[in-house]
Amino acid sequence: GYAKIDHHRSIRNGYPEVIYCEGKTDEHILGIIEKMSQKNCNILGTRVKKETYEKIKKIYPNCKYEELGRIIKIQNKPIENIGKGNIVVVTGGTSDIPVAEEAYHTAHFLGNNVKKLYDVGVAGIHRLLNNKELLFDARVIIAVAGMEGALASVVGGLVDVPVIAVPTSVGYGANFNGLSALLTMLNSCASGISVVNIDNGFGAGYLASMINKL
Amino acid sequence: GYAKIDHHRSIRNGYPEVIYCEGKTDEHILGIIEKMSQKNCNILGTRVKKETYEKIKKIYPNCKYEELGRIIKIQNKPIENIGKGNIVVVTGGTSDIPVAEEAYHTAHFLGNNVKKLYDVGVAGIHRLLNNKELLFDARVIIAVAGMEGALASVVGGLVDVPVIAVPTSVGYGANFNGLSALLTMLNSCASGISVVNIDNGFGAGYLASMINKL
Amino acid sequence: GYAKIDHHRSIRNGYPEVIYCEGKTDEHILGIIEKMSQKNCNILGTRVKKETYEKIKKIYPNCKYEELGRIIKIQNKPIENIGKGNIVVVTGGTSDIPVAEEAYHTAHFLGNNVKKLYDVGVAGIHRLLNNKELLFDARVIIAVAGMEGALASVVGGLVDVPVIAVPTSVGYGANFNGLSALLTMLNSCASGISVVNIDNGFGAGYLASMINKL
Amino acid sequence: GYAKIDHHRSIRNGYPEVIYCEGKTDEHILGIIEKMSQKNCNILGTRVKKETYEKIKKIYPNCKYEELGRIIKIQNKPIENIGKGNIVVVTGGTSDIPVAEEAYHTAHFLGNNVKKLYDVGVAGIHRLLNNKELLFDARVIIAVAGMEGALASVVGGLVDVPVIAVPTSVGYGANFNGLSALLTMLNSCASGISVVNIDNGFGAGYLASMINKL
Amino acid sequence: GYAKIDHHRSIRNGYPEVIYCEGKTDEHILGIIEKMSQKNCNILGTRVKKETYEKIKKIYPNCKYEELGRIIKIQNKPIENIGKGNIVVVTGGTSDIPVAEEAYHTAHFLGNNVKKLYDVGVAGIHRLLNNKELLFDARVIIAVAGMEGALASVVGGLVDVPVIAVPTSVGYGANFNGLSALLTMLNSCASGISVVNIDNGFGAGYLASMINKL
Amino acid sequence: GYAKIDHHRSIRNGYPEVIYCEGKTDEHILGIIEKMSQKNCNILGTRVKKETYEKIKKIYPNCKYEELGRIIKIQNKPIENIGKGNIVVVTGGTSDIPVAEEAYHTAHFLGNNVKKLYDVGVAGIHRLLNNKELLFDARVIIAVAGMEGALASVVGGLVDVPVIAVPTSVGYGANFNGLSALLTMLNSCASGISVVNIDNGFGAGYLASMINKL
Amino acid sequence: GYAKIDHHRSIRNGYPEVIYCEGKTDEHILGIIEKMSQKNCNILGTRVKKETYEKIKKIYPNCKYEELGRIIKIQNKPIENIGKGNIVVVTGGTSDIPVAEEAYHTAHFLGNNVKKLYDVGVAGIHRLLNNKELLFDARVIIAVAGMEGALASVVGGLVDVPVIAVPTSVGYGANFNGLSALLTMLNSCASGISVVNIDNGFGAGYLASMINKL
Amino acid sequence: GYAKIDHHRSIRNGYPEVIYCEGKTDEHILGIIEKMSQKNCNILGTRVKKETYEKIKKIYPNCKYEELGRIIKIQNKPIENIGKGNIVVVTGGTSDIPVAEEAYHTAHFLGNNVKKLYDVGVAGIHRLLNNKELLFDARVIIAVAGMEGALASVVGGLVDVPVIAVPTSVGYGANFNGLSALLTMLNSCASGISVVNIDNGFGAGYLASMINKL
Ligand SMILES: Nc1ncnc2c1ncn2[C@@H]1O[C@H](COP(=O)(O)O)[C@@H](O)[C@H]1O
Ligand SMILES: Nc1ncnc2c1ncn2[C@@H]1O[C@H](COP(=O)(O)O)[C@@H](O)[C@H]1O
Ligand SMILES: Nc1ncnc2c1ncn2[C@@H]1O[C@H](COP(=O)(O)O)[C@@H](O)[C@H]1O
Ligand SMILES: Nc1ncnc2c1ncn2[C@@H]1O[C@H](COP(=O)(O)O)[C@@H](O)[C@H]1O
Ligand SMILES: [Mg+2]
Ligand SMILES: [Mg+2]
Ligand SMILES: [Mg+2]
Ligand SMILES: [Mg+2]
Ligand SMILES: [Mg+2]
Ligand SMILES: [Mg+2]
Ligand SMILES: [Mg+2]
Ligand SMILES: [Mg+2]
Repeated sequence: GYAKIDHHRSIRNGYPEVIYCEGKTDEHILGIIEKMSQKNCNILGTRVKKETYEKIKKIYPNCKYEELGRIIKIQNKPIENIGKGNIVVVTGGTSDIPVAEEAYHTAHFLGNNVKKLYDVGVAGIHRLLNNKELLFDARVIIAVAGMEGALASVVGGLVDVPVIAVPTSVGYGANFNGLSALLTMLNSCASGISVVNIDNGFGAGYLASMINKL
Repeated sequence: GYAKIDHHRSIRNGYPEVIYCEGKTDEHILGIIEKMSQKNCNILGTRVKKETYEKIKKIYPNCKYEELGRIIKIQNKPIENIGKGNIVVVTGGTSDIPVAEEAYHTAHFLGNNVKKLYDVGVAGIHRLLNNKELLFDARVIIAVAGMEGALASVVGGLVDVPVIAVPTSVGYGANFNGLSALLTMLNSCASGISVVNIDNGFGAGYLASMINKL
Repeated sequence: GYAKIDHHRSIRNGYPEVIYCEGKTDEHILGIIEKMSQKNCNILGTRVKKETYEKIKKIYPNCKYEELGRIIKIQNKPIENIGKGNIVVVTGGTSDIPVAEEAYHTAHFLGNNVKKLYDVGVAGIHRLLNNKELLFDARVIIAVAGMEGALASVVGGLVDVPVIAVPTSVGYGANFNGLSALLTMLNSCASGISVVNIDNGFGAGYLASMINKL
Repeated sequence: GYAKIDHHRSIRNGYPEVIYCEGKTDEHILGIIEKMSQKNCNILGTRVKKETYEKIKKIYPNCKYEELGRIIKIQNKPIENIGKGNIVVVTGGTSDIPVAEEAYHTAHFLGNNVKKLYDVGVAGIHRLLNNKELLFDARVIIAVAGMEGALASVVGGLVDVPVIAVPTSVGYGANFNGLSALLTMLNSCASGISVVNIDNGFGAGYLASMINKL
Repeated sequence: GYAKIDHHRSIRNGYPEVIYCEGKTDEHILGIIEKMSQKNCNILGTRVKKETYEKIKKIYPNCKYEELGRIIKIQNKPIENIGKGNIVVVTGGTSDIPVAEEAYHTAHFLGNNVKKLYDVGVAGIHRLLNNKELLFDARVIIAVAGMEGALASVVGGLVDVPVIAVPTSVGYGANFNGLSALLTMLNSCASGISVVNIDNGFGAGYLASMINKL
Repeated sequence: GYAKIDHHRSIRNGYPEVIYCEGKTDEHILGIIEKMSQKNCNILGTRVKKETYEKIKKIYPNCKYEELGRIIKIQNKPIENIGKGNIVVVTGGTSDIPVAEEAYHTAHFLGNNVKKLYDVGVAGIHRLLNNKELLFDARVIIAVAGMEGALASVVGGLVDVPVIAVPTSVGYGANFNGLSALLTMLNSCASGISVVNIDNGFGAGYLASMINKL
Repeated sequence: GYAKIDHHRSIRNGYPEVIYCEGKTDEHILGIIEKMSQKNCNILGTRVKKETYEKIKKIYPNCKYEELGRIIKIQNKPIENIGKGNIVVVTGGTSDIPVAEEAYHTAHFLGNNVKKLYDVGVAGIHRLLNNKELLFDARVIIAVAGMEGALASVVGGLVDVPVIAVPTSVGYGANFNGLSALLTMLNSCASGISVVNIDNGFGAGYLASMINKL
Repeated sequence: GYAKIDHHRSIRNGYPEVIYCEGKTDEHILGIIEKMSQKNCNILGTRVKKETYEKIKKIYPNCKYEELGRIIKIQNKPIENIGKGNIVVVTGGTSDIPVAEEAYHTAHFLGNNVKKLYDVGVAGIHRLLNNKELLFDARVIIAVAGMEGALASVVGGLVDVPVIAVPTSVGYGANFNGLSALLTMLNSCASGISVVNIDNGFGAGYLASMINKL
């Protein structure tokens, strides 16, 4: 076996290792799941194709698939609620939803209350302002946006909790596959904002959970 | 003389040629002013150093200098008010003011009513929202912002008049000298926004005037 | 329903919301059309695949498809002519026509007289110069060009009305998917030019209409 | 006065507004301090030149200067200890220290226990491993590194608290002024890491404090 | 025949020319193999599709295919063991294995003892530290990593033999197809590291062999 | 002596080696001139500071300086007129003149009739069209332009002789130090155009001479 | 009819317009050919798919296809030999041949003697040096190379005729689709070299013909 | 003291730590030298300003300065000759010499025979070919070149020992501060070449020594 599964992590890091399925063969993924299952832990897989899920489902009937977020979940023991407050996932447009769902399901599976506020981008700012209570009720916010990615700054200016900004590759032309949103978010003049990789919903969900557990 | 001054432009384009002084020697600039003065037209110079202004002032005592915007104006005949409505110049921060002033004085000298709304960036969105009437009263808006440059999108989502977005080089690090604000503005999901070059306050003021004259 | 349709916009902004269909499923698009139809407003969809149109057509028989520009139009009430003058859409080559048509149909559907002047790029400048009257008769010009994108500068030097420049991704190699035309247009030494995103015919048509209504 | 000071923020956001002094004139900075002083709040200024500090000191004798971090602090009332645990600031090399100090003093002034672990970059990994206890004792970690910026990944793999990564512009050649460290940190395969702008020590310190207060 | 096969190289350079099969037609590849076979030398082909291999196999039954590394080997005479020590190939993740295998089989076919240490990336540093003896036993190390590519620096800080760093295109978003790992490796603050092209396992294996033969 | 002067070149290449003085010390330059002078050939130096010229002048009184083009010429024997037709140097603006002069003096010193047509950029196309005869009379054209660099395309569309395009770093913001003009020129849809490095007037003059001698 | 065919060009420019077929529909191409055929001129088409050729062939039986170079030629009248000397097309590797063939057939169809020297890249410099006579016998050289693109410099250092450098997109990883070869060629320290767009064999062949006709 | 000097390295890595002096204050550098001197080891400093050297010289009279390479050497014990063969440092031009000297003195101080072959760039290939024996006599070669950086490929094609390529920032315009040479070297089609950071003469000298000691 090639992969060195990192069993120490659940002790060291408090969470099980998550399987990043992009570019792995189905056989490879099944092999990793098998090894992890022996430990009876909960298993999360990201960037999973539907066909892959269907193969897994045959062997692990308790496997669930979140189609929009492309996530599989195999729950072998109860999810312990570790989060102390709410995590809110906000998106600029409807095209950002797949990335947002990756964040949502990651944070949820890791034991958090997570709420959604989708399609409230800055070009129609009243949609965001009409939902301020939801934002004010959050302990951590995940702001997901493509194109100009300005959502994170506006949200960051309204609240005083950490905002994790996720640039998405949504858009065309001079968005340069997410570069525009990435740079926008890195240069935010609002404070309390930090950024993860383009389209990295998983990373945002994981970090939000880590903060919410503190 | 090297420079081919474009006297047709005032007829063809309706405006006098403007002198872009960056990288021209004082002698060169004085030579161009001299030729233009023979036509008795109004003269505008951009990106003018204070020392250059002082040399010009000695020969053309009616020359005025706008220090923040680095503009000289030599008014040889009355400015005809050609603008049909208000132009409003908005900035995200205080560091964007020099670029905004270049736009302001350009549009003003070309015969427009111009109003200012400075330091209302998206990180404290109430500052912009508290001044909505000013925006709603505009026929053309110039939105000047550096760093994440999100101001243009928010303004564009509030109004239904043309918004000319001017990215500035204000910021550091991953702003890449204005690239971040430029990309943000080009990818705006609000409609009615178009973009000029980084720090090009002049271009925005000129275009705003051209639209306001329609 | 995920999408928050922005019904205020037709009041606030004077136009109905337009559906950006790239990356949306047919179901999602049909759902949005359904909600919008209840308001009896005119509906425009951009970046629509032919198969999507055919599905829509079955339910909304008055739906029309502009194949080159990939636009659908559902006209539920008469189009009010809001434009005060002509909008002229100019292209450099024949490959830029799809983007130009997106601009053309957007501006037309929003209530403007729009004229076309295609394939008059700078490499054969007489083609443009032979059509000067058409340009001189415009209130707003949309200049669409890929490769070196020089058309906008030449047009901008000939007229004194606003020129909206649309860089296209047409070309290969060092065009870097439209970056070359984008930079050319941003750096234009002609005045009165502003730029929208690469291939954003819709944005140019919308802005042209907004200006033409002033 | 141009600048719109954001007095609501101390209520809304829980912290006083911080003065970003880069590119502001001394007069401008003094004006802002004066207005803020009337509120009797604690004042922090970043990117302050020594000469500027000296001018401020004359008027506000309780002003202190942190030379390496280029920070001024005017403490008008006791600093309330709001942090629940330790913040640890780690650097890869000695050249990253100025950015680290900006983070350190920001977090400290905002009411946190902050510890330092400098010059423990990955090229001599034992230096980091020998100080694991310090890391394990942190509630939030700030990892500051230039050149290849790998420190954040290694730290992130060792701990299970949030790691705020600060890329620095330290290095030469293909570091492209911090781009290399920025990309490294954004692509970290360790979880729980998020990134702020190149050289943005302030942003990291502020966010760390926000998290530590939760 | 178009291709000018470089028969002098085996004399001049000590190794047979290797066939880079990407973008060559099967006919072209077979033609080159035929010419080379007349010299009775050992033949290596890189970036070979499985179908191409199958065609070659029919004509040259002693042809072997390394599927992961996409390499064909036709051994016409014994491989002379020219390497004086061990070459160790290390990878950050499991997705980097194809590139590592290209390096492995190249070095092995050229007459070296090669060892593997896969999936020991910096996010779980203990996996690397637990295998230090293997590293200390190497004469040359090949470090293969994508995403943030930090592995090379950590390895370089542990050993005092040459480390050849191979950035891979593994990752997404701001990895920009391998640029992030490439810049990381070029900016390594550990000494004794040099870099080859993104995904260039062959180049690393060839150079490692060249050094190991010294 | 470090530098290996390439005396064969005047035989092999038909021209004397030219001294590129950027980044060389005065001593170094004088040393090279001394060696070349022993051959009694004509000497050209580019990118020469005025102070350097003044030092050279003291030792070589026949040395001449072209201030705008920053070129020194030491003529030790008559210049043979090798050019068969005219070379015309065209510029877009007045700021491009220094680069144009480098091209002009290079081509002239190498034995060509060279004509100038400066400040005829595309934003006022009549300036170029009014001078068509000059263009039609050329055997080779050098088109020098910064900012959007569209001049080369327009010229290339008018003539049927080779056009050597020289992008300049003139401009600001999104010109990215000449990148915009470079990309424009590389993507020209006019035929017969090729490009040299940004600001490389020398290279254009040399190549024009080489072609004009054919 | 959308396309404005440029019949003046054959008078103005001395050559018939060439059809750039990339991204044009078969119908569009056939329409252009039809119009051109009425003039009885020779027709060249570049970037033509084989299936397109087959459709054309049915209507224009004298149409010929150059498969490697993807060029169609319809010769309606004899090709006049306008070239005064030889054009030599050189490539670095075998993968550059398609681009070279585009150049070859363009120059040949325009009436030139053209010779080929393929696969003589700098990594085995003797292959080039063994063919010096061919180079010395050329009036214009076209140097086609991908990857590091160094061929143009070496050729340029050997000859004293114009070298037209064509960077190709051949390679992978840090070749960034031809950027590496493009930058290499633009920065060549050999004189007499100019560059066309990445993969632009047509442009090089056309320009070479233009020079060879002088 | 901030800096954690890595005394283990001389044991672990076989060499003393080298001081990278760029961006360190003189006091800081002197402090590090003092600590190192207590160990009586040989000390190397890179990127040292002449004024810094002069201060060091006063305290450590045995300190020597290599002006071109900007290196200081404090030799406290005899240099052990560890290199088994020759290292040859080759440069393309004379402007690359400072970087080459950094490599030369580093390798020499670490105990190697080092030879120089400067100014033999590819534009006059005979200069390199005339010195083939020197190359054939090397055990490791360091190829230093700016502009198009093609030297490494040509050298790599001639020899069968490792070539360490050092791109330099020498050049202008589209060299983008060394990017062109860097990409050229990374894409070399010659085998046995690896690359270090732009201008990193130290890294090349250190690695060459490490290989030469094997
Ligand atoms: N969508 C994702 N994006 C980034 N990192 C991920 C993602 N999903 C999982 N990971 C991380 O990738 C690691 C597994 O990588 P691997 O060894 O290639 O399976 C996990 O421990 C996660 O931290
Ligand atoms: N082709 C297009 N390019 C850019 N923006 C568009 C395009 N078509 C529609 N839009 C804008 O996208 C908005 C709808 O986005 P969404 O909420 O994702 O449907 C509309 O209000 C338009 O302003
Ligand atoms: N492969 C090619 N690359 C670049 N330009 C070309 C190519 N083939 C033809 N052209 C040019 O493109 C022009 C025709 O463009 P179009 O009007 O789009 O057909 C011709 O006049 C040629 O100058
Ligand atoms: N010119 C140089 N370029 C890159 N790395 C260097 C250079 N000089 C010294 N170094 C490395 O930098 C390390 C010292 O870094 P520092 O701790 O900042 O002094 C040394 O161990 C060397 O490996
Ligand atoms: Mg929406
Ligand atoms: Mg403010
Ligand atoms: Mg055409
Ligand atoms: Mg150190
Ligand atoms: Mg793993
Ligand atoms: Mg002018
Ligand atoms: Mg070959
Ligand atoms: Mg030389």
